[in-house]
Amino acid sequence: MGDTATLVLLRHGESEWNASNQFTGWVDVDLTEKGRREAVRGGELLSEHGLLPDVLYTSLLRRAITTAHLALDTADRLWIPVRRSWRLNERHYGALQGLDKSQTKARYGDEQFMTWRRSYDTPPPPIEKGSQYSQDADPRYVDVGGGPLTECLADVVARFLPYFTDVIIPDLRVGKTVLIAAHGNSLRALVKYLDDMSEDDVVGLNIPTGIPLRYDLDADMRPLVRGGSYLDPEAAAAGAAAVASQGAK
Amino acid sequence: MGDTATLVLLRHGESEWNASNQFTGWVDVDLTEKGRREAVRGGELLSEHGLLPDVLYTSLLRRAITTAHLALDTADRLWIPVRRSWRLNERHYGALQGLDKSQTKARYGDEQFMTWRRSYDTPPPPIEKGSQYSQDADPRYVDVGGGPLTECLADVVARFLPYFTDVIIPDLRVGKTVLIAAHGNSLRALVKYLDDMSEDDVVGLNIPTGIPLRYDLDADMRPLVRGGSYLDPEAAAAGAAAVASQGAK
Repeated sequence: MGDTATLVLLRHGESEWNASNQFTGWVDVDLTEKGRREAVRGGELLSEHGLLPDVLYTSLLRRAITTAHLALDTADRLWIPVRRSWRLNERHYGALQGLDKSQTKARYGDEQFMTWRRSYDTPPPPIEKGSQYSQDADPRYVDVGGGPLTECLADVVARFLPYFTDVIIPDLRVGKTVLIAAHGNSLRALVKYLDDMSEDDVVGLNIPTGIPLRYDLDADMRPLVRGGSYLDPEAAAAGAAAVASQGAK
Repeated sequence: MGDTATLVLLRHGESEWNASNQFTGWVDVDLTEKGRREAVRGGELLSEHGLLPDVLYTSLLRRAITTAHLALDTADRLWIPVRRSWRLNERHYGALQGLDKSQTKARYGDEQFMTWRRSYDTPPPPIEKGSQYSQDADPRYVDVGGGPLTECLADVVARFLPYFTDVIIPDLRVGKTVLIAAHGNSLRALVKYLDDMSEDDVVGLNIPTGIPLRYDLDADMRPLVRGGSYLDPEAAAAGAAAVASQGAK
């Protein structure tokens, strides 16, 4: 395994709007206490498996940043270098941001709801600039013109992959164990690329929260094992099923 | 003020070994609950004064890293870029690390105690490699040969200033508001430089915990006001007096 690189993906735990069943996207909500415990558990798993990151990448959203902080604190790796980028952010949910998922489903119907949630290339309607849950005036996105007004998963792939290939892969190539703390859809975008999944297959991909997902990559930066391996496979299977059923309630 | 640069210094709040009155140095102890509250209060002060950092520098020690995390979370600036360096670490206390301050004082006498605590250029005896509170096998210091075995304040000045001039000042020159979250003695080393203090004068300098200290710097990176300004001057005066009396109990 000397010539392989190790990449660890960690999806943040429960946020306040996961708990209240609202579309979140780029709205910067905090973790719940349950989400904090998930992050600590993620750190315990890293520690128990001796999987110690050398460098951390996060989105610009506090639920991912705090997840990484709590996990690395638990694994005694708070001191590693950190890089943050909007390119790791959750998918921008457009005009759906802030809406209740169940109400949205009831109002627009199952088909439209699932299209917005899971279609590869159909974004929700754009968010109105200056509205309550838009980010166009957020100082963290000034350099990118306020960021997108909506995104489909294809858009997330398009903005995340250049960062992965140009910034993260160089760290992997020099042998660093890289931790990426991010979001359901930004990690789906990355896993689609790593596992060379079709647009249809990625629709059914659900990444559980708080459980580190390890990929060992060969010299061409391809996974030795497709799908990688979760550090707690049983909890991961249960978690993925829970994600898949979201919005069904 | 358009051509001035803004530097904010934040000393971490109470740590477990502050509370238990032990010499800490490079031992990576956590904050107490009181220390966490101090960090949150520091973030409230940043927010209330509209003093919003664009970039964060921390040591490699969790009490500084977590202080910054809590303060920036409170000030809604968790997303800013972060750089960490051992050069911002607390002074290495050598063989004193882990010892009870009062017992050390009783054993070695007031004069020796104060010399170790406050002399500019007399380090404590070196710590024994491989001993309980040494860092020579700590993975975070591998690149610097395990780090020093003891330090006086002059040593801290010598290792911090090159980082300040070569890494931090460039951020200040391009107009960024820089936050440094660090330690009593690394911040004393920096303030000695900024305020051009003599070796004698710095002996009497006490920096309170958890209260942001603002320096506005001119084009030559010299302070407009010597000593800077604390965002809560009354609390800072009380805090400095408390620091000065440490070890007296």
